[in-house]
Order: sequence, then structure tokens, then C-alpha cells
Amino acid sequence: MAHKVAVFRKEHFNAAHRLHNPEWSDEKNEAVFGKCNNPNFHGHNYEIIVQVTGEVNPETGFVIDMKALGSLVKEFVLDRFDHKNLNLDVEEFFYLNPSAENIAIVIYSILRTKIDAELALKIRLYETERNFVEYPVD
Amino acid sequence: MAHKVAVFRKEHFNAAHRLHNPEWSDEKNEAVFGKCNNPNFHGHNYEIIVQVTGEVNPETGFVIDMKALGSLVKEFVLDRFDHKNLNLDVEEFFYLNPSAENIAIVIYSILRTKIDAELALKIRLYETERNFVEYPVD
Amino acid sequence: MAHKVAVFRKEHFNAAHRLHNPEWSDEKNEAVFGKCNNPNFHGHNYEIIVQVTGEVNPETGFVIDMKALGSLVKEFVLDRFDHKNLNLDVEEFFYLNPSAENIAIVIYSILRTKIDAELALKIRLYETERNFVEYPVD
Amino acid sequence: MAHKVAVFRKEHFNAAHRLHNPEWSDEKNEAVFGKCNNPNFHGHNYEIIVQVTGEVNPETGFVIDMKALGSLVKEFVLDRFDHKNLNLDVEEFFYLNPSAENIAIVIYSILRTKIDAELALKIRLYETERNFVEYPVD
Amino acid sequence: MAHKVAVFRKEHFNAAHRLHNPEWSDEKNEAVFGKCNNPNFHGHNYEIIVQVTGEVNPETGFVIDMKALGSLVKEFVLDRFDHKNLNLDVEEFFYLNPSAENIAIVIYSILRTKIDAELALKIRLYETERNFVEYPVD
Amino acid sequence: MAHKVAVFRKEHFNAAHRLHNPEWSDEKNEAVFGKCNNPNFHGHNYEIIVQVTGEVNPETGFVIDMKALGSLVKEFVLDRFDHKNLNLDVEEFFYLNPSAENIAIVIYSILRTKIDAELALKIRLYETERNFVEYPVD
Repeated sequence: MAHKVAVFRKEHFNAAHRLHNPEWSDEKNEAVFGKCNNPNFHGHNYEIIVQVTGEVNPETGFVIDMKALGSLVKEFVLDRFDHKNLNLDVEEFFYLNPSAENIAIVIYSILRTKIDAELALKIRLYETERNFVEYPVD
Repeated sequence: MAHKVAVFRKEHFNAAHRLHNPEWSDEKNEAVFGKCNNPNFHGHNYEIIVQVTGEVNPETGFVIDMKALGSLVKEFVLDRFDHKNLNLDVEEFFYLNPSAENIAIVIYSILRTKIDAELALKIRLYETERNFVEYPVD
Repeated sequence: MAHKVAVFRKEHFNAAHRLHNPEWSDEKNEAVFGKCNNPNFHGHNYEIIVQVTGEVNPETGFVIDMKALGSLVKEFVLDRFDHKNLNLDVEEFFYLNPSAENIAIVIYSILRTKIDAELALKIRLYETERNFVEYPVD
Repeated sequence: MAHKVAVFRKEHFNAAHRLHNPEWSDEKNEAVFGKCNNPNFHGHNYEIIVQVTGEVNPETGFVIDMKALGSLVKEFVLDRFDHKNLNLDVEEFFYLNPSAENIAIVIYSILRTKIDAELALKIRLYETERNFVEYPVD
Repeated sequence: MAHKVAVFRKEHFNAAHRLHNPEWSDEKNEAVFGKCNNPNFHGHNYEIIVQVTGEVNPETGFVIDMKALGSLVKEFVLDRFDHKNLNLDVEEFFYLNPSAENIAIVIYSILRTKIDAELALKIRLYETERNFVEYPVD
Repeated sequence: MAHKVAVFRKEHFNAAHRLHNPEWSDEKNEAVFGKCNNPNFHGHNYEIIVQVTGEVNPETGFVIDMKALGSLVKEFVLDRFDHKNLNLDVEEFFYLNPSAENIAIVIYSILRTKIDAELALKIRLYETERNFVEYPVD
């Protein structure tokens, strides 16, 4: 019987962003998002931990090749998000507020289509060392 | 349909404590708790990670405002625990041994009443980098 | 009613290893395992986080004595794995590829027999800061 | 005789920035600064370590009150840099490229005037965990 | 010609302490030391980095045997400071305020007599991740 | 007048090694090097911090292009050391004991010839989080 193991790969990207709801007044945006609403943007060193869960292949001892997983993340996430302005350069956030929650959901959606459906997927995203999120939840 | 996301906020406090069961003899306390039973106390830089799980509000992109969450933790936990002697200064531990397990349970009890009941809550507490606990468990 | 808490203990060991499937040709081994197939081995500072979940003992405030848990890990894992070549010195890997997944499964198997069956056990193993695994999964 | 000790205080701020030399063509800027030249900015979680060296005051045991030092950094650096766009919001960088080197020099200049001249001052600035700078050098 | 190298060994201890000057009034102690003056003590996970600088022995490739250095620190510092109340249990602080600065100076004095005088010695002490000190300075 | 700044770049490699002096008996090797003398090798996740000190170029704001520095380290150090057995695969250690001290000296020698002589160079090498070295010393 095969063993089910979760494997985790950590990657990072540096990006500018701004929290803003265009349907609200400037006053409400400032009241809700505070400093994060700065119209000139601020930024973060984001860290992503991609968790993939499945059965260990007895021939390789792998759930998934970590290097292949890292390459997927690089091609479909880092190359599009790293050293970018999330609001202005990444189309998923043209109409979606780039909160940590939403960034994690977007990264999940991107990677979900690239990884074998038999493997469970979860994203943890650190906006700072003190603020982080995880999606989906069990 | 709303997405469920877990958000995490890290905070810290520095406190003295001592492990001790007043119903036991000094010998038994020393045998069970060892150096942690020092009658003059020792101390730690405790780190708390507060995990709140719920649906993302589509207007804000937030499960909960991290800054508001941080303020709650500050007001109801840090201001009472930080730079304190847990055994002597914090009433929850006047009759409860301040093990990492019990500290996590107490912090959970305090915060559970302050956070919307629709949001799930979990506490991770680091006593040291090498010893930590989580409550509740799924 | 007793509270269920998860407790975590972090330990580490330094070891050499090599990823290799003896049933494959050298070409296939190199194609699948890349640099990790180096016949002269490479190595890692492995970090283990042992998670034990159970009810808090009301007399001690402990799920399990962390120091006793640390001693178990030292005696049955670290003393056998630390400063060793996993492929050549540790019998569990004489015929099993020492991938992070398999190392975690082996550590779990070793510790499962040493820890009270009423306590749930989980192993997280860091091969590097960027690559880690967890076993079993819920 | 008084003892000379160095004390260190770590703080952090999150900011957007862009590397750009307005006297160069777009091609040269892109060739030299690569992704860091993105006209829409990117960002970082910057960490500052402020080092102050001097004699220990025998009455307090302090070289400088760490909390007072933290307040100085907050008032004169963090309140002006945190959640800002360095190029657009911080006047020191209106005409100076906000490289890690230059940010460290600017922070040093700001704090040098606020700290007793008998105390030596040094700034370490982390742009990411992998890239950091220190100013001045001995 | 022999090469001069600095070697560093990290150790840690957990202790309670209180900042207090017995020659001052309670009001002045509270004004100067704030929460750190709590008469019931608070505590920290202290980290020590012991730096030893000297010529590399060509037969061993070592400046000093790291394990021997670790044992020295354990015997003369950790066994006396770990899980102790610095003010009440450690005689060096009976009449000396246990600020980070003074703890570093005391550890230096203890270890200086145990390490070959041809080797330079320096102590870095972390009281928290954000507050640390170094002694002596060059 | 140009400002002198130190810049730091962190990189890492994973390698096997063994401490051994071929001119000594097996008994003496075991007595001096202990577990590190295991004939089957053990291994580490080594971290290198390359420090380059010099004047800031006023046109770029750089002491040295961090990305170019990273590429140098990759080409001349990582590609030769990563996923290797230092004793068997890296010629500098065929006759030199791969202690942390000696590895730092070797990396310094390699990089010294690749970096402009006007720039000062220093190497910090972490063998583990607890044991690290720096070369040269001021």
C-alpha cells in the first residue's frame, strides 16, 4: 500500500501592490485599508509555500519531483509576479484587490491546472513574517 | 461562492514562569519538571501565531483585518502577558500550571470571545524555537 | 473534559545521502535524480519536527514531557542518523531510496512504536529550508 | 573604566521602489537594472539593524535605551518610509537612486543627527534575506 | 603562513531577569526601565554567539574545536544561567543590573579565562530577535 | 566624495564531507574529529555570505551589481561544490581537510581572483546554524 505524504516547496517574489476598492470613495478606502491604500504603492518580499499531497511513487521515493515543482512555480507564478506591480502588471489583479488572501487564491488557481488532479494542492503565502495566509482550508 | 482562507498573525511577548504543581511535594515537582521548577522562575520570548479561518469578504479581500486582529491580541493578550511573571501577575495562572499547552488554551479562551463566532480560531504558541504547541486540534 | 493539544519538538541531524534506484540504468538515474544521484554522495542539515497530539494531563499541564520526547528522538533517530551516510550506514535505507518522503516515513515508523498509541504522531522533515515533507497526512 | 559595547536594534518597513538613472536611455536602464527598472515599481520588506556603539552607563547598564532608540527610528525613518513608494514619496530619493546602498546611507544621515555624537552609528539594511548592505564601514 | 579565521558558536539559555537600580527610587526605576522593572521579573530566550579568532591549525584545519568550545560554554555559562533567575540565582548579577550589555560583559569575563589568550574573543548576545549587543568592540 | 559601503550576498550549497588527517592513525582521527571522521561521510546545507566592500558608483548606486556577484559565486563556487562530495569531487580538498575554516579560505581564494582588486572581500560560511566561520579577519 502506498504512503500518502505532503511535500512543500518554498519560493519567493518581490512585488509592489496597493489595497484599493474602486467602488468606494477615497475616504472609505483610506479608512479601511489605511497605509496599504497609498496610491503610489508599497511592496513586499512575498514567500510562497506550495504544498502537494499524494502517494509516494515507489520507484522514485517522490510524491512529485521538487525540482519540476519549482520549475512550474517559476514559469507560471514567479515569472509573472516577481519584480512586478501586482495591480498594474498582473492581469488577475486588474479588477481584484491584491490582498494576501486573494493572491493565494490566484496562485492556487494558476497552479491547480498545472498539477496532476490526483495530487492535493495548498498554498501558503507570507506577505511579511508576521502576516500570512493559507488556501484552501481543509 | 466565497472562498475560505486561513489568515495568520504573529505576535510575541516576554515573560517569566515556573512549572509547579502545588499538590505535589518539592521532590516530585523537581523530578517531573526539572529545571523548569526553579522557585525563582526562568523565562522565555514567547511567539504566538493566531490563525483565523473564514470566508473572504469580496469587498475587502480580507477574512479579517490583520491590523484589527493584531490590536485585539495586543489589548487582550500582550498587554496582560508581556514583561510579566505568568505565575504571579496573570490571574489565569494563579491556579493553573503555565505550561505551553495551558498558555495556548488560555490565549484561545481569551480571544475566542473577541472574534466573530463564524470564524474558526487556532493558536500556535512557541515557548522556544524548538518547543511549540497548537490548540485546538482539528 | 480534557483539552486536546498538539505539541511539537524540533531536532536536527547532519547526514550524507544519494538518490538512486538500483533497478535503473545509470542514465535513467541521472535523468530522474540529476545532481542528487552523485555516486560520491552529497549531504544536508536535516531538521525534524515531531508532532504529538493528545489530551493535556491536568496534573502536569503536558501532553507529553518535551524533554522525554527529545530523548526518545535522540536515542532512536539522531544517534542512528546524525553524522551518518544514510545509504551506507542506516539499514532502513540499504534497499530504500533516502528521499525526504522516505526518511519521514522511516522516522515515523521508528517513533510510532516508542510513543503511547493514544497519542497521534506526525513527522515534518526539512531537507533544506526550501524543500520539506510531512507524514502522515490527515 | 567604562566598557564599550555595541547595541543593535532591528526594525522593518515595507516599501515600493524602482532602480532608475534618469540621465540614461531606457535601453541602458534596462540593461543595467534589469527587472529592478520596472517603471511600475516592485517592492520589499526592508529590515534595518541600527548599531550604536559607546560606553555602558554604570547607572543603567545601557549604552542607549533600546526603546528610545526604537522610537527614534520609528519617528524619523519608519513613519517616512513604511508603506511608501521610495521614489515618489520620500524626498531624499527624488533625485537619488534608491539602491540598498543609497537607502542605508540616507538612513545613516537621518539618524546621525538624532543620536549623541559620542556614540558610533552603523546601519545594516536587508533588501531581501539574500541581499543586504552595511554603512559606514570601519 | 597561517591563516587567521574567526569561528562562531551559537548557544542559548532561558532565564528570568529584572532591570533595577537599587540606589534609585521606585519611581525613577519605573521611569527609566518601564516594563523591564516588573518586581516579579519577566524573561527571555537568550542566544549567545561566541566568536573566537586565531590562526588555523594546519593539522586539524581548526582555529578551535567547536565541540570543545561548545562544552566550555555549556559548563561555565549555560549550566549557571539556563533556567535561572539572573538577579537571584547568578552571583555576578547580585549587584549588577542584568541588562543585555552587562550580561555580555559577564559572559566575556567568564570565558576569557577559559580560552587560550592567543585567541581573540567576542560575545554577541541576543535578548530578543530585535535587541542584541556585542562586546568587546574593536 | 564617494561613500564606502559593504554589500552582502547569501548563497547556499549542499555537500558531503569528512574530516580526516591522512598522516594520523585511525584512532587519532577518531579522537580528534569524532563523528565528523565517519569514513562514509556526512553532509551539510552550507550557506555562504560573500561580503564585498568598496565605493558606491554614483551612476548606479551600486558597489557591485548583486546579480553579477551572485552569478560569479554560482559559476565558480556553487557549480563546483553543490551536490558534491568535497573530499572526493573538489580538487582543492584532495589534500586539504574540508573544515569550515578551510572551506571559507578556499572560497575566498577562488573569488578573490574574480573580483576587482579595489574591492575588499570577506567570506562567512555557515556549516550549520550553530557553527560558522569568517575569513579573512580585519
